Amino acid sequence: MGRQVVVIGAGSWGTALTVILGENVAKYREDFSPTVWLFDEKVDGKSLVETFNAKHENVKYLPNIKLPHNVVGNISLAFQVLKILVLHQVACKDIKECARDADILVLAIPQQFLANTCQSMVGCVKPNAVGISTVKVRGTSTFSYYYVLKPIFCKGVELVDHHDIVPLSTVISRILHVRVAALMGANLALEVAEKQFCEATIGVEDEKDGAILKKLFQTKNFLINVVNDLPTVELCGALKNVVACAAGMVDGLGYGSNTKAAVIRLGFIEMIEFIKRLYPNSKLTTFFESCGLADLITTCYGGRNRKVTEAFAKTGKSIAELEKELLDGQKLQGPYTAEQLCDMIEARGLSAEFPLLVTVHKICSGQWKVDSLIDRLRSHLAN
Amino acid sequence: MGRQVVVIGAGSWGTALTVILGENVAKYREDFSPTVWLFDEKVDGKSLVETFNAKHENVKYLPNIKLPHNVVGNISLAFQVLKILVLHQVACKDIKECARDADILVLAIPQQFLANTCQSMVGCVKPNAVGISTVKVRGTSTFSYYYVLKPIFCKGVELVDHHDIVPLSTVISRILHVRVAALMGANLALEVAEKQFCEATIGVEDEKDGAILKKLFQTKNFLINVVNDLPTVELCGALKNVVACAAGMVDGLGYGSNTKAAVIRLGFIEMIEFIKRLYPNSKLTTFFESCGLADLITTCYGGRNRKVTEAFAKTGKSIAELEKELLDGQKLQGPYTAEQLCDMIEARGLSAEFPLLVTVHKICSGQWKVDSLIDRLRSHLAN
Repeated sequence: MGRQVVVIGAGSWGTALTVILGENVAKYREDFSPTVWLFDEKVDGKSLVETFNAKHENVKYLPNIKLPHNVVGNISLAFQVLKILVLHQVACKDIKECARDADILVLAIPQQFLANTCQSMVGCVKPNAVGISTVKVRGTSTFSYYYVLKPIFCKGVELVDHHDIVPLSTVISRILHVRVAALMGANLALEVAEKQFCEATIGVEDEKDGAILKKLFQTKNFLINVVNDLPTVELCGALKNVVACAAGMVDGLGYGSNTKAAVIRLGFIEMIEFIKRLYPNSKLTTFFESCGLADLITTCYGGRNRKVTEAFAKTGKSIAELEKELLDGQKLQGPYTAEQLCDMIEARGLSAEFPLLVTVHKICSGQWKVDSLIDRLRSHLAN
Repeated sequence: MGRQVVVIGAGSWGTALTVILGENVAKYREDFSPTVWLFDEKVDGKSLVETFNAKHENVKYLPNIKLPHNVVGNISLAFQVLKILVLHQVACKDIKECARDADILVLAIPQQFLANTCQSMVGCVKPNAVGISTVKVRGTSTFSYYYVLKPIFCKGVELVDHHDIVPLSTVISRILHVRVAALMGANLALEVAEKQFCEATIGVEDEKDGAILKKLFQTKNFLINVVNDLPTVELCGALKNVVACAAGMVDGLGYGSNTKAAVIRLGFIEMIEFIKRLYPNSKLTTFFESCGLADLITTCYGGRNRKVTEAFAKTGKSIAELEKELLDGQKLQGPYTAEQLCDMIEARGLSAEFPLLVTVHKICSGQWKVDSLIDRLRSHLAN
């Protein structure tokens, strides 16, 4: 009997990872027997899961990408190499059954449902199971989300209060009482699913988890580096969105490529310094992994944070207005992360050391004008 | 009597720097009395220098940018705060006069004329003068250039043979017998001249030169960091063009932003490792300066190396053909630098450690197909 891999969630990113896991499991089936759980919903009047099974495709979240044939969306096919468990909501009964099987528990559900979903698995997860957070933030428009879950999560991290910040892996680990790793990197779901060449970083707390997780996730087009520096891996994913906001403002203000490169460089340095303050054992080499430099660069050129803050600088509209217009009401991650970081930085009297991180919040919240970004950098650097 | 600053050369970059120096000299005129030397030529039938004086503008190399009024193109106005020395060719007599005045000697002439020009100043430069190389490569189409000057220069470095590489500052220093610093960074001449916010790095060998040079070059829009790590500063400027060639190939092959970010990340790591092998005292912090990370990013997104290799991957034409079509016959720096680096790397048996640098040469020279770039990275990273 091999180890069971259970995937919780199948949006575009979870589905892209399922493509990889399905193929790897077929290759390593003596070792692994994965299960994928996803949230069912109606798409064009049909069950997403029924279509999923019939077409081997997630028609809502990752259309036109074929899933491996060992991926089947039916809980009853318990002996399929890869199976999909389908629930109509975040219900306890069936997810508990999944959780009980898991030796490797892959968390790929939307972040705003993460805590509740983990709560629903409490007591069911084997004590020697290994979790891996692959959670990406999509945001939400509902105030109640902020209210209910506050302190809420940023990508990769939970901001517990104004003076501390806790990686999501720690949050999961505290709820489920298992070791939890994290997978981060410059990974657009569609590019990964299309088998474009890219990389990712898996951060672990325990070296021995690394080999298993790398074996499960690595393909010839999706290359994994494992680093024993989990907090840095996750915090990079949160902080890069703040730098991307500054990059977007530079674009919106009409500055050229020299200015933008300067802002990315400075943002990278502030990320390193900030994370080192929180986690003095943070390793500099981790910032050179895909989760660090590569994810930062691609986010500063192509991400949604960059796009919205470019429009912010150009139009003078508020972030909230632009979220409605450009993101269909979803919240943008960078400004929210910046707000939380700024609170932490100010509470510790460190504003002068993190001018970029602070300024992004001051501008996004309307306290400072957008062109103060350049003034702040100028006065900081001229020292 | 203040210190004399002599600028040798006034193309677009030299002129942009003259704008800065002119303003700073006006501010610090008790300390500095600069002289700018440029190569005269006919533009629309008129002397470039006469137009320069009449309009306070370099109409050929930096049109529409007004020079400070203390910049005057006439050798006879010896007591102007800033004056331009005009010669009809690289003649010894007048350049020797300039050189004799210099306490700070700013070299901004095209690289292919650098060695000859320095030769023409031999014996005239004060032994306690300080040189600063700001040389950027523009390339040339003439075989004779390669023949005559071989071993030739790359941006920031001279490739002396297949087993060594010498920064341009060292070349200048060996000819003129003075200390020579270097100014590098993410600096497009026009953006600098337009006073967009950007940064640069000055590499020095002697700390005490740093303060003087920073005072001369820094403005509120052109921020200077001085680092005591001259070879790293110059070598970054050479190696980044090779990485940009790989970035262009990724674009031309149709890969997405994840792949490109991976290539930039890996290229940055290879740059660091390569330079550390040549200069074990190289400081990691220097790679985080404008001359390192910022210049690399902007070159990989916007530079001519990226552009030509994108076309190379798309069209299947040779680099030589594309140089004719896209660069009016000028040589592209990246492929040439890659060739020299590859020779060095192979001679030392280090190919496996620098897959990106080696592969860029193999592809540009037609030995390997362009899509082997991804295969090489894949096999390297999968280890």
